[in-house]
Amino acid sequence: MDAAKLLRALWESFEARDWEGAGRLLAEDAVVEWPQTNERLRGRANILAMNRNYPEGWSIHVEDVWPAGPDRAVSRVRVPYGGSEEWAVSFCEARNGSISRLVETWAPAQTAPAWRARWVEPLA
Amino acid sequence: MDAAKLLRALWESFEARDWEGAGRLLAEDAVVEWPQTNERLRGRANILAMNRNYPEGWSIHVEDVWPAGPDRAVSRVRVPYGGSEEWAVSFCEARNGSISRLVETWAPAQTAPAWRARWVEPLA
Repeated sequence: MDAAKLLRALWESFEARDWEGAGRLLAEDAVVEWPQTNERLRGRANILAMNRNYPEGWSIHVEDVWPAGPDRAVSRVRVPYGGSEEWAVSFCEARNGSISRLVETWAPAQTAPAWRARWVEPLA
Repeated sequence: MDAAKLLRALWESFEARDWEGAGRLLAEDAVVEWPQTNERLRGRANILAMNRNYPEGWSIHVEDVWPAGPDRAVSRVRVPYGGSEEWAVSFCEARNGSISRLVETWAPAQTAPAWRARWVEPLA
């Protein structure tokens, strides 16, 4: 599988709470990096343990997965959670058919500031 | 210019407050979409006006630009602002040598939750 397929399969596994399936997509030494909280998950075991223990109530809706060559892809997923929602973007690197690195940012739903209303329209 | 070069040049123009230069990179009917605030900027004039009027104090530091074919690219930039910082990710589409669409998410610096500390290490 190329990086885009691996990344899409990872989201499907997480959404299904299929931790074994997710584990098969991750390299043993995979890392997940979250710059906005200054955190790194190092290794498949830590990545899976954190996800298994994430307080429940979340779901994952894949909005876009863009291949960036065979070994890289970027996804944007929408994650309803706790009455609100967030958008997560993942820069994914693969090696030998496994995900080796994810750099992710999490963007929460927010109220649009009033000062810029004159230049914008609602999306939906 | 391909999408990756256009996108990098757009960030350089914004950082330099070079609004004319930024305008030359955008299609006249370009759109910017912000799902987390349910906002769309439609048209080069609105995009430039909003950016010119964004309250000052921000700077842009490009962390990554990944080409995804000649007409698509994704960037992640770090934006220090108001004593904190955000990470913006832009899914960029180009057409005929101009940026035609940007779908962006903005992820603010946050404190890491304590419950997952046992599986993480600091990035830096």
